[in-house]
Amino acid sequence: MAATSGGRVAVIGASGYGGLQTIRLLQGHPSLSVTFLGGERSAGRRWSSICPFLPLPDDPLVESVDPVRIAEVADYAVLSLPNGLACQLAPQLLDRGVRVVDLSADFRYRSLDQWLEVYAQEASNINRTDAELCREAVYGLPEWNGPAIAEAKLVAAPGCFPTASLLPLLPFLKQGLIDTDRIIIDAKTGTSGGGRVPKEAMLLAEASESIAPYGVIGHRHTSEIEQMAQDVAGQTIQLQFTPHLVPMVRGLLSTVYARLRDPGLTAEDCTTVINAVYRHHPCVTVLPVGTYPATKWARHTNRALLSVQVDNRTGQLVLMSAIDNLIKGQAGQGVQCLNLMAGLAPETGLPLQPIYP
Amino acid sequence: MAATSGGRVAVIGASGYGGLQTIRLLQGHPSLSVTFLGGERSAGRRWSSICPFLPLPDDPLVESVDPVRIAEVADYAVLSLPNGLACQLAPQLLDRGVRVVDLSADFRYRSLDQWLEVYAQEASNINRTDAELCREAVYGLPEWNGPAIAEAKLVAAPGCFPTASLLPLLPFLKQGLIDTDRIIIDAKTGTSGGGRVPKEAMLLAEASESIAPYGVIGHRHTSEIEQMAQDVAGQTIQLQFTPHLVPMVRGLLSTVYARLRDPGLTAEDCTTVINAVYRHHPCVTVLPVGTYPATKWARHTNRALLSVQVDNRTGQLVLMSAIDNLIKGQAGQGVQCLNLMAGLAPETGLPLQPIYP
Amino acid sequence: MAATSGGRVAVIGASGYGGLQTIRLLQGHPSLSVTFLGGERSAGRRWSSICPFLPLPDDPLVESVDPVRIAEVADYAVLSLPNGLACQLAPQLLDRGVRVVDLSADFRYRSLDQWLEVYAQEASNINRTDAELCREAVYGLPEWNGPAIAEAKLVAAPGCFPTASLLPLLPFLKQGLIDTDRIIIDAKTGTSGGGRVPKEAMLLAEASESIAPYGVIGHRHTSEIEQMAQDVAGQTIQLQFTPHLVPMVRGLLSTVYARLRDPGLTAEDCTTVINAVYRHHPCVTVLPVGTYPATKWARHTNRALLSVQVDNRTGQLVLMSAIDNLIKGQAGQGVQCLNLMAGLAPETGLPLQPIYP
Amino acid sequence: MAATSGGRVAVIGASGYGGLQTIRLLQGHPSLSVTFLGGERSAGRRWSSICPFLPLPDDPLVESVDPVRIAEVADYAVLSLPNGLACQLAPQLLDRGVRVVDLSADFRYRSLDQWLEVYAQEASNINRTDAELCREAVYGLPEWNGPAIAEAKLVAAPGCFPTASLLPLLPFLKQGLIDTDRIIIDAKTGTSGGGRVPKEAMLLAEASESIAPYGVIGHRHTSEIEQMAQDVAGQTIQLQFTPHLVPMVRGLLSTVYARLRDPGLTAEDCTTVINAVYRHHPCVTVLPVGTYPATKWARHTNRALLSVQVDNRTGQLVLMSAIDNLIKGQAGQGVQCLNLMAGLAPETGLPLQPIYP
Repeated sequence: MAATSGGRVAVIGASGYGGLQTIRLLQGHPSLSVTFLGGERSAGRRWSSICPFLPLPDDPLVESVDPVRIAEVADYAVLSLPNGLACQLAPQLLDRGVRVVDLSADFRYRSLDQWLEVYAQEASNINRTDAELCREAVYGLPEWNGPAIAEAKLVAAPGCFPTASLLPLLPFLKQGLIDTDRIIIDAKTGTSGGGRVPKEAMLLAEASESIAPYGVIGHRHTSEIEQMAQDVAGQTIQLQFTPHLVPMVRGLLSTVYARLRDPGLTAEDCTTVINAVYRHHPCVTVLPVGTYPATKWARHTNRALLSVQVDNRTGQLVLMSAIDNLIKGQAGQGVQCLNLMAGLAPETGLPLQPIYP
Repeated sequence: MAATSGGRVAVIGASGYGGLQTIRLLQGHPSLSVTFLGGERSAGRRWSSICPFLPLPDDPLVESVDPVRIAEVADYAVLSLPNGLACQLAPQLLDRGVRVVDLSADFRYRSLDQWLEVYAQEASNINRTDAELCREAVYGLPEWNGPAIAEAKLVAAPGCFPTASLLPLLPFLKQGLIDTDRIIIDAKTGTSGGGRVPKEAMLLAEASESIAPYGVIGHRHTSEIEQMAQDVAGQTIQLQFTPHLVPMVRGLLSTVYARLRDPGLTAEDCTTVINAVYRHHPCVTVLPVGTYPATKWARHTNRALLSVQVDNRTGQLVLMSAIDNLIKGQAGQGVQCLNLMAGLAPETGLPLQPIYP
Repeated sequence: MAATSGGRVAVIGASGYGGLQTIRLLQGHPSLSVTFLGGERSAGRRWSSICPFLPLPDDPLVESVDPVRIAEVADYAVLSLPNGLACQLAPQLLDRGVRVVDLSADFRYRSLDQWLEVYAQEASNINRTDAELCREAVYGLPEWNGPAIAEAKLVAAPGCFPTASLLPLLPFLKQGLIDTDRIIIDAKTGTSGGGRVPKEAMLLAEASESIAPYGVIGHRHTSEIEQMAQDVAGQTIQLQFTPHLVPMVRGLLSTVYARLRDPGLTAEDCTTVINAVYRHHPCVTVLPVGTYPATKWARHTNRALLSVQVDNRTGQLVLMSAIDNLIKGQAGQGVQCLNLMAGLAPETGLPLQPIYP
Repeated sequence: MAATSGGRVAVIGASGYGGLQTIRLLQGHPSLSVTFLGGERSAGRRWSSICPFLPLPDDPLVESVDPVRIAEVADYAVLSLPNGLACQLAPQLLDRGVRVVDLSADFRYRSLDQWLEVYAQEASNINRTDAELCREAVYGLPEWNGPAIAEAKLVAAPGCFPTASLLPLLPFLKQGLIDTDRIIIDAKTGTSGGGRVPKEAMLLAEASESIAPYGVIGHRHTSEIEQMAQDVAGQTIQLQFTPHLVPMVRGLLSTVYARLRDPGLTAEDCTTVINAVYRHHPCVTVLPVGTYPATKWARHTNRALLSVQVDNRTGQLVLMSAIDNLIKGQAGQGVQCLNLMAGLAPETGLPLQPIYP
C-alpha cells in the first residue's frame, strides 16, 4: 500500500472485529489510509484469503508486528489486541514517533495499580512498569476529552459499555443534578462484543433465543465507568453495573437509573440539559422526549442515540443510550480519535446514518 | 371432543398464542382435556386448517363463543382474549357454573376504578359495572395465592412481567429486608409477548438485530406489580419498571435492583431466604450463587429460574428471574391455576425441563 | 428541499422499505438528491416523525402524490408502491417529462397480457390499457441492459429473486453452455422482502427459528426470470423456482442447478466464463473457485457475489449468488439505474463494501 | 442412578448436543432410563455444574468411559462422540453384551473402505480393521429398517441431512416413479448441527443474519444418502447435494427435486404414494397438498413433516421435508432405535407435537 499525503495508519490485529472495522471505516476515509496490516496468526497471508468479502487495493499481505517497519510506513497505529498485549507494543511505537490509539483496556486507567488489580489475570503473565505511560494516556471519549485527544501521543479508546453509559450520564453528574449514590446501569450488548475468537457461550446455538445477565458483580467496566464519572463529578462514585448478553450481532443499549436532586425537573428540562452538552457533537444525537432509541437505529454508525425520561412519581431519571458496540463502542470511536489527532473534524469519514432495517 | 372423567376445559381465543399454548399444554395432561375451542375470526374452521402443525384428535371445529354451549361441555374456561373482552364473557360463564381462568388484565386489579384508569383505552369502549367481581377474582400467582386459587371461581392470571418480577421480589418484601423505595425493575422480553396480531414493530425485519426500551414511564404492568408488592409488603410501594423488547421469540428476564436494609447480608444469605420460600414449589428454582439464569434455560417450560446477587460495595441486592413469557408468563401459569382449581398438584402435566439448546 | 444542479429525484412510497432505502442511498450521493417525498398514509407528516433514526436536512414533509407538483421539483421519480399502483401513476409522470424507475412488477413484462395473467389479483381492481408502455419499458438489470436503461424514460427494476438468479445464469445461457431444460433455482430470502406492512407470517415470533418454502409452484418471479432467460438464450425456457423464507432481516441467496452440455468443463473454466462477463461491472464480483458467498458478505451493499462450482460426477453446474435483497435486489439497483439514466457511472454513490459482521 | 426394571442406558458424550438431547428425552421415558453418564472433558464433574438448567435426580457424576463399568450398569449405550472415536469404543461394549446406538458416522457405511475414503481425515489417526462390524451394523432409519434395528446389536443412527432427505425420496425410488439421474437435494440446516465445540463460523456474530452454502461438492452426507437410495432403488445413484447454513439454532429442511417418469402424475397422486408408505409411522407426517412444512413445526419433536408438489409444466417433483436436526436428525432418532431394540413402540417417550411459536 502506497503512502499517502494524509495520515498513514497501521492496523494491528487486523482480522479481529476491531481491526476489521477499522480497516473498513478507513477505506472510505478522505484523509487517512491504511498502510500496514499487522497480525500474528494471519501474518504472511494475503488479505483476500482472510476476508474475501472486503477486497483491499493491491490485496496486501498481513505482516508480523515489527515496530521498526511500522514506524517507517505509518504515522498512527490502531492496536486491536487482547488485553495485556498493547502495553507491550505501544512503548516501542511511541519511541519511534508513531502515535497510538489502543482499543484494549491496557491504558484506560490512569493508575497502573488499578489496572493490575482489575485485570489481574492478564497482569499475571506480564511485568508492567509503565505507570507513567498510564498517567499520560488520554481516555478517548472525544465528546469529553477532545482537546487532550488532539494532542495525545497515546489514546486509550473506551470500552463499549463505558461509552454508552457515560455519554448520557456525564452531563447530569457535571451539573450536579443527580444523587451520586445508587446509580444503576443495566446494559445490554450483542454478542460481537465477545470478539471473534470462538467461545461456547457465543455460538449461535447457545446465544440465540436467549437473554442472560453476566458478570453481575464486579464486571471490569464498572471501575472504568466510575473513574470517568468521578473525574466529571468531582467526587467518589460507586455504581451498580449489570451487563446482559442479547441475541443479536451488534448493538448496545444502556439503561441508566439515577435519582434527580430536584424532583421538579421534567423530562423536557433534562433533555434540554443534555442537548446543550451535545448540540455541537455530530456523533451524539438526543432524541425528543418520548422517543426511545433502538440499537438498530445506531447500527453500522458512529452515532450514539440518547433519550431522557423522568418519572415524577418516583423522582427517577431514566437515561437510555444506544450505540453500535463495534463502531461508536470500539473501532469508530478509535477513528474519531484519529481524526482529532490528525486535526480533522471528529466525524470525518464515519457513517452517521443507518441503513434500515 | 368427548367429555372426559377429569376436568373439561374450554379454550376461548384458540388461535392466538395464549390459546395455542393452552391447547398444546393440555394435550398431554393426565386429567384435564380440551372439550371446546372458541374463536371469533376462526369460528367454523377445522383446527387443522388453522394449525396444521398441531394435530388434535378428531380435528375439531373452532366454534363461536356461546356461553350456553360452553357450559354444557366444559367445567373450566381459559379466556385468551384482548383486554376488555373477558370482562364481558366471564360473568356469563360464571353464572352457568363454569370456573374461569382469564389470561387478560381484566380482573387483575381488585379495584375496578384502577382498571378503568390504567386500561382507559379499552374502558372507553365498554361499560363495566362488575366492581364486585373484580374484588372476588383471585390473582393467579400460584406460589403466593395457591389456596385462594384452589377455591376460586374466577382467576386472573398475572401478566408476564409481573410474574417474573414478583417471584424474586416478594420474599424480600415479605421479610422486610429491602428498602421499599427506589426498587428498579429492568425487564426484557421476547416479541411473542406482543401477540399474534400483526404489528409493524413486531416484524422480524424491524425487531431482529435490535434491542429497545418501550413504555418507559407508566407501562401498565407497573401498577399490577405494585398492587401485589404492596399486599405482601403491607405498605405503599412505587417502583420503577422499564420493559425492553429483545430480538427473540420467547423468554423474559427481569433484573430487579433494591437496597438491602442490612448491608451485612451476603448473596448466600439472600439465597437462603428465597430458597426457603420456594423449596416446595416445583415451578420455581433458585440457582446457586454466581449462576445467572438465561431465558433459554426456562424456554418451553413452566419454570421460573431465580438468582440472587449482592454487591457489598453498594449494598444493592440484584435479583434475576427468567421465565418463558408464554408458559410461566401466560398459558402455563393458567394451567397451573387450573390444576389447583381441579385439586391437582400445581405442576401436573406441565413441562419443567427445557429442550436445550 | 432545494433543487440541485445534478438530478432531482422524487421518492414515492417513502416510508416503505424500498422508499426508505432509496432515500438513504441518495443521502450520500454526489450528484442526485431527493427533492420530493411522496406517500399516502404518511402525507402531511414530518419525515422525522416517521423515521427518527434517519434525519434529513430541513426535516421535509411527506406530501401526497401530485404529478404536477412532482414534475415541478423532480427530474426523476422512484416509485416504491404495491403492484398495480405504479401503472396508474407512471404515465402521468412520463407525460410531464419525469423519467421513472419503478420498483414494482407493473412494467417488468413486455406483454401486458402476461402481467394481467400473472398478477391477476392486482389486475382485477384496475383497468390497464397501457400495453404500449409495457413494451417500451426497459427491464432494469444494469449489467445486461445498461445502454437501454441509459436512454429509457421508464425503467422496471427487476425483482429480488430474478436479480440474484439471472446474474449467474445468463452468461451460461448466452454461451449455450448448459441444458435449458431442468434448470432449478432454489432461492432463500430474508423477511424484509415481504415489506413493511405487517403480516402474521413475517412476525419475528413466527418467522424466527424457522425456514420454510413458499409459493412452491408458480411463484410470480418464475415467469419474470424466464422472460429474461429466454431473451438471452434465444429459446423457450421453463425452469423450476422455489423460494424459501429465512430467519434474517436481509439477504438473498440463489442456488442454481443446471447441466453442462460439455461434461469436461471444470469449475475454473466456468469461473472464467462468468468472470469475462462481469470483469468490468463494479457491482458484481465473482469469487474464486471454492469460496462460497454468504449473504452477510453482500449485506448493505449493492454488490452481487457469485460463485461457480462443477460436480464432474454428475455433470451439474452449481451457481451461487448472494445479494442484499433491499439494495441490489431493490432500491440500490434502482439507484444504479438512475445513475445510468443521469449519465453517471453505475456504482456512483452506492455502497460496495459490507460492514462486517 | 439406580437400575430400573426397563432398559438401562449409558450416554457417552453427555455434554455435547447429542448427549444432552438423549438425556433430556430419556428423562420422561416410561421404560428406559439413563444409568451412566460418560465423558472425557467433563469426567469427575457433577452434572449440575455442567447443565444447571437440566437437573437430574441425585445429580450424578459424569464418569470416564470405562467399558467394564458401563456393562455393569447399562443394557444399551448411546455414543455421541466425534467421528473416529465410536469405532474404538463400540467393540468393547458389544463384547460385554451392551447393545449400541452410535450417533456418529463410524458405522453408517456397510463398507469400511468407503468410510476410510470419505472420512479420510479421521481415518488417518486410527487403524480400523472392523470391516465385519461395519457390515453387521444396521442403518438406523426406523421407518425403513425397523425389523433389523429391533434385532441389532449395533445401530448406526443416520446423519441429519440423510434422514430429512431420504424420508421423502425413498418411496419414489422404491416405486420407480422418478428418474434416478439428476436428483438434486438442496438442504438447509440450523447451526446446532455444527455441534457444541466452538468454531468461528458458528458464532452468533458470524452466522446470524446470513445464509451460505458450504461443502458444495462432495459433502460427506452425499455418499451416505446415495448408499441408502441405491439399496432401495436397486441401482447406482449419483445425486447432487448442497447444504446451506441457516441463521437459526435448530431445524433442517430438505428440498428435493427429481423428474417424474410419468408426467401425468399429480401432486395428489404423489401424496397418496408417500402417504401409503408412512401412514402407520407415527414419526412421519405427510402434509396436505399445498401445505409446505416450516422447520418450526417440527422443532423439539421427533417428527418429520413431508410435503409433495408437482410442477406439471416441467414434470418436476418437488419434495420438502422438515425435521429438528437434533431430535429426528440425531438423538430422537437414536431413542427411536432404542425403543425398537427394547421391543417398544418406536415413538415411546418421544415428543411429537411442537410448542409453537
